[in-house]
Amino acid sequence: MQESRKKKCTIRFEPSGLKIDVPVGTVLLEAAHKAGAYLNSICGGDGYCGKCKVIINEGQFQGKPTTLLTADEMRENVALACQTKILSDITVTVPKSHALETSQIIMDSDAHRFSKLAGEVRAGIFPFDPLVHKIYVEMSPPTVHDHTADHERLYLAIREQIDAPIMQTGFRILQKLPRLLQKGGYKATVTVGRRGQTTEVIEVESGNHSKKNYAVAVDLGTTTVVAHLMDLTQANTLDTEATYNSQINFGEDYIRRIIYAEQNDAFDEMQNRIVNDVNNLIVTLAARQGIDLHDITTVICAGNTAMVHFLLNLDSTRIRREPYIASASFVPPIRAAEAGIQINKRGLLYCLPSVAAYVGSDIVAGVLTTRLFTNKGISLLVDIGTNGEVVLGNREWLVCASSSAGPAFEGSGVKQGMRARAGAIEKLTFRDDGSTDYKTIGDAPPVGICGSGLLDTLAALLTSGIIDRTGRFAVDGQPRLTEGDEGRQFQLVPAGNGHHEIIITQADIDNLIRSKAGVFASIRVLMESTQTAAEDLDAVYLAGGFGNFLNVQRAVTIGMLPDVPVEKIQFVGNTSIAGAKTVLLSEKALETAEEIAKSMTYFDLMSHPGYMDEFTRANFLPHTDLSLFPSAGAVKREV
Amino acid sequence: MQESRKKKCTIRFEPSGLKIDVPVGTVLLEAAHKAGAYLNSICGGDGYCGKCKVIINEGQFQGKPTTLLTADEMRENVALACQTKILSDITVTVPKSHALETSQIIMDSDAHRFSKLAGEVRAGIFPFDPLVHKIYVEMSPPTVHDHTADHERLYLAIREQIDAPIMQTGFRILQKLPRLLQKGGYKATVTVGRRGQTTEVIEVESGNHSKKNYAVAVDLGTTTVVAHLMDLTQANTLDTEATYNSQINFGEDYIRRIIYAEQNDAFDEMQNRIVNDVNNLIVTLAARQGIDLHDITTVICAGNTAMVHFLLNLDSTRIRREPYIASASFVPPIRAAEAGIQINKRGLLYCLPSVAAYVGSDIVAGVLTTRLFTNKGISLLVDIGTNGEVVLGNREWLVCASSSAGPAFEGSGVKQGMRARAGAIEKLTFRDDGSTDYKTIGDAPPVGICGSGLLDTLAALLTSGIIDRTGRFAVDGQPRLTEGDEGRQFQLVPAGNGHHEIIITQADIDNLIRSKAGVFASIRVLMESTQTAAEDLDAVYLAGGFGNFLNVQRAVTIGMLPDVPVEKIQFVGNTSIAGAKTVLLSEKALETAEEIAKSMTYFDLMSHPGYMDEFTRANFLPHTDLSLFPSAGAVKREV
Repeated sequence: MQESRKKKCTIRFEPSGLKIDVPVGTVLLEAAHKAGAYLNSICGGDGYCGKCKVIINEGQFQGKPTTLLTADEMRENVALACQTKILSDITVTVPKSHALETSQIIMDSDAHRFSKLAGEVRAGIFPFDPLVHKIYVEMSPPTVHDHTADHERLYLAIREQIDAPIMQTGFRILQKLPRLLQKGGYKATVTVGRRGQTTEVIEVESGNHSKKNYAVAVDLGTTTVVAHLMDLTQANTLDTEATYNSQINFGEDYIRRIIYAEQNDAFDEMQNRIVNDVNNLIVTLAARQGIDLHDITTVICAGNTAMVHFLLNLDSTRIRREPYIASASFVPPIRAAEAGIQINKRGLLYCLPSVAAYVGSDIVAGVLTTRLFTNKGISLLVDIGTNGEVVLGNREWLVCASSSAGPAFEGSGVKQGMRARAGAIEKLTFRDDGSTDYKTIGDAPPVGICGSGLLDTLAALLTSGIIDRTGRFAVDGQPRLTEGDEGRQFQLVPAGNGHHEIIITQADIDNLIRSKAGVFASIRVLMESTQTAAEDLDAVYLAGGFGNFLNVQRAVTIGMLPDVPVEKIQFVGNTSIAGAKTVLLSEKALETAEEIAKSMTYFDLMSHPGYMDEFTRANFLPHTDLSLFPSAGAVKREV
Repeated sequence: MQESRKKKCTIRFEPSGLKIDVPVGTVLLEAAHKAGAYLNSICGGDGYCGKCKVIINEGQFQGKPTTLLTADEMRENVALACQTKILSDITVTVPKSHALETSQIIMDSDAHRFSKLAGEVRAGIFPFDPLVHKIYVEMSPPTVHDHTADHERLYLAIREQIDAPIMQTGFRILQKLPRLLQKGGYKATVTVGRRGQTTEVIEVESGNHSKKNYAVAVDLGTTTVVAHLMDLTQANTLDTEATYNSQINFGEDYIRRIIYAEQNDAFDEMQNRIVNDVNNLIVTLAARQGIDLHDITTVICAGNTAMVHFLLNLDSTRIRREPYIASASFVPPIRAAEAGIQINKRGLLYCLPSVAAYVGSDIVAGVLTTRLFTNKGISLLVDIGTNGEVVLGNREWLVCASSSAGPAFEGSGVKQGMRARAGAIEKLTFRDDGSTDYKTIGDAPPVGICGSGLLDTLAALLTSGIIDRTGRFAVDGQPRLTEGDEGRQFQLVPAGNGHHEIIITQADIDNLIRSKAGVFASIRVLMESTQTAAEDLDAVYLAGGFGNFLNVQRAVTIGMLPDVPVEKIQFVGNTSIAGAKTVLLSEKALETAEEIAKSMTYFDLMSHPGYMDEFTRANFLPHTDLSLFPSAGAVKREV
């Protein structure tokens, strides 16, 4: 018994060649985590999402019974990694579907939107006054007639250039300051950063390095982490990069990840993952632009509350269970190194403030970016990501809620759903002859369907009558409608040159409807509670990683957004990073973000009496109550 | 050559039994430092103070020629440790005169003065509002209807009890906060401290520990380090303790110590010494009062600028050479642990602000304590220590200067001079028959003479005509006036039961006159510059470690203080620690101290055109210009 417990076997992952030795009986998914082999997993290892399929090439293993593998798959030794125990040395092939294609995600497609939206500072909405300044100061050296101490001499010089009534210097800087000033002839570059009301001297260097002041803005997405490298002296974006959030092995949504971390005592690991992701992005950006990490003085992060908690290793367990609270909504600036982020050793890490456990700083950034808080008229912001967050309000009031309807529009829970990357169908309509017209990202052969494509698909199926208002397939005898492993499915694109067929299943459609119903029910609760009618809405902003060619009208067609004239709806892309960048460049924007976070009233939908009713009523296309969607008929005619 | 360089020999110090192995050729004083054997040394090893005498019991050594050893001493193998190289294994006796008698210094004798002077807070001059508070907060735990995050919940609770508009929490506290609150049912003790305008959450603990909030006030003297343990909840002093500054091995004044540290790359060692002294005091006080070091949340230090620089290991080299500046006059509060001070790991260390390289925070504390800055009339503060600092002013202006006339009144440069400890003559007059009436500290057999005794001696010698106004002995044929090793000397006390004779030499008298002349010249420069006449002075405060029974009139008699009516002169003892304690207990007092430090105008006497003249004129008893001392005749009659 003792001996067998100690017995090890070697697992080799193909095509990466990664290897690891683990005790006999280890679960394959766990071994993959340890080996650093990337495997999709939505359910966090519970065996019901079916995303962690791998092929066992050779070796002994033991799987649990599952309905998620077809007979064919079982014959071909396909296994669910999370349900498979290893009994001997083994070789595993990780199918391509698990592969990371980070160079093609979101980023490119969103770049043009950012350039429009992150221009708040340039547009003069907020003054250019970055959170961290580098100031070149030339002081007259002390003489017997001017005996001001070095420390106070430096403060005087700083205050000649910036407004800094309250200043602070760290002990290590104080210790090195005198020799540094003497060596450099009292010419120095001072890095000063805002920490609350205090201006902290972060770094002092001999000579003039004031032009080398860089920062990184990060959107901590549950699925994707996006980073923008900024030049703080010029207020412009030098480069952008993105990567998948490597916590994804622990569950595709953050609730799963919290559960996983609790069960496996893996909060440190969870932090390591996201910190490594951020560090990798920073290093990549710095290397590409030939910038020394020492000259990156600031990192600013926006993200949902759980992601910020993971990053800082704050207790996130009560985000997922009663009383559903955060450990901190307003995180004070800390030294980035304290969280393990590798920029200047004394550089600062800012996290934008959040509102509640389910309305994070990404949403505050969204409100900042879309300027809901300055408009006299009422606007609606809907951010579709792993969750669907909704904000309603104007310059006098702001209410918000979060729908946990699931990440169907991010491709999860949809058989051929995928994120907005190369090969994803991002645009889809049916031609008059019923055939499918589509466009993929990068014009690559179709691999799956991303958010905008799924919206299009659902709208097209509805308006063409292929599905009815309950979402059921309504066209018996259609040759493209077949019976698959998971029930009925509709062929959108036949298999072709170098690609499989693209289908959508009844289960996919049900998931998408539930997801949009959750979002719309949230919107309804906020509108009802504030007695806002659809015609009161001046603007509707739709944010999220949908893809390039989002047809916002489709969001009305399927009943995800209220029925307002299409010209009032604007797709705004990733407002999280846009807001983070604005704050980075303007202290006033940080203050505004804090005011926004404080002033937003959070509606907890789980305890809201009307929500479940609204949700049930929204589980129709577009809605049970057609009077809410007067344009539904018109759209049908358009298609 | 190589071999001989490596050859080691063992030194044994008696009676301590301390041993150390050092290379052949090592200087004995250096070896004593390394072994931790305490040896007096004023000159820092330059071979001219003669304080480091030891007796070599056995072994080979090589000494340099010196006039500081008598023929008898050389015969008895007495050696100057700083001028002696060790050539073999050796045993050394350290004479008793080097021994530390820390339990009897200053502290006791000053205790009653502190109790009078540190009462600023109780007297309502400053509101009781300590720099560090411990607050017990009972929060309602979060519910689904109250989703405020832990961090903001804590802030709300703190703000119910204290005024804290700007708050900050360290990252480690933020990380541990959620679990701590949950575990403790949202009942917690919060330690908050002022860092500039910001209130920092220093510590959070479950349960109510708000009554355990202790602090230590420290006077960092060049010679003596005094510490008072305070209960911050009661605003009272629990205990006091003092020790010699163990840097004293490196030179008795701080200029010598800076030189030593520069020459021997010993700034780290210099810091270690003073930090160890402070830690020893803290540990002693805590142990004696049964207090956990964890519950000591604050240390506040006042001292001369060099001592504060040593404590924090800030560059002190320019204090001693042009341009004679400090590295920092206003030291921001830091975590005590950063400087190596062992209290609560996150507890704060405050250093009071200083004015200039030669006017330190001890003087600012003195101004705070004596309230020069609030009086309408002009007052004078004279602090006699290793240096003599002088402050003149009122509520509208403050000027200050430092005389580097040397620590004669602390007993240095005086053959039988000593600090105010057991056996020191602290009071002395001549009876009508010419015999000496004296009192020693602790009524012990006389060992030497401390500050107040030296003042008395000089005054008595003058008024009895034994010395003339130049300080020369003027009574040929007096049997008590003899020729000693160092010229003429006067017997104050004949040898008696268990004690040697007590004498004063011509060189001693010259040193004391130079010292008082430096102080008075400083006073004159400040008074002349501000057109203040002696009759304009409302009050004269004399501070320093003189002894218990200082007759302030004597300070006028010898011409150290201006000739004002005796009722205007007050001996105020150690105002440095009194000021530090006041600040500790009242944030308003800290603000006031900062205002004082900012508003004081420093006169650099070295570059002042009139100073040398004033010094020369003051090298008489009481002064060259007798019109400045109209009471001189009256005093003579009194005696």
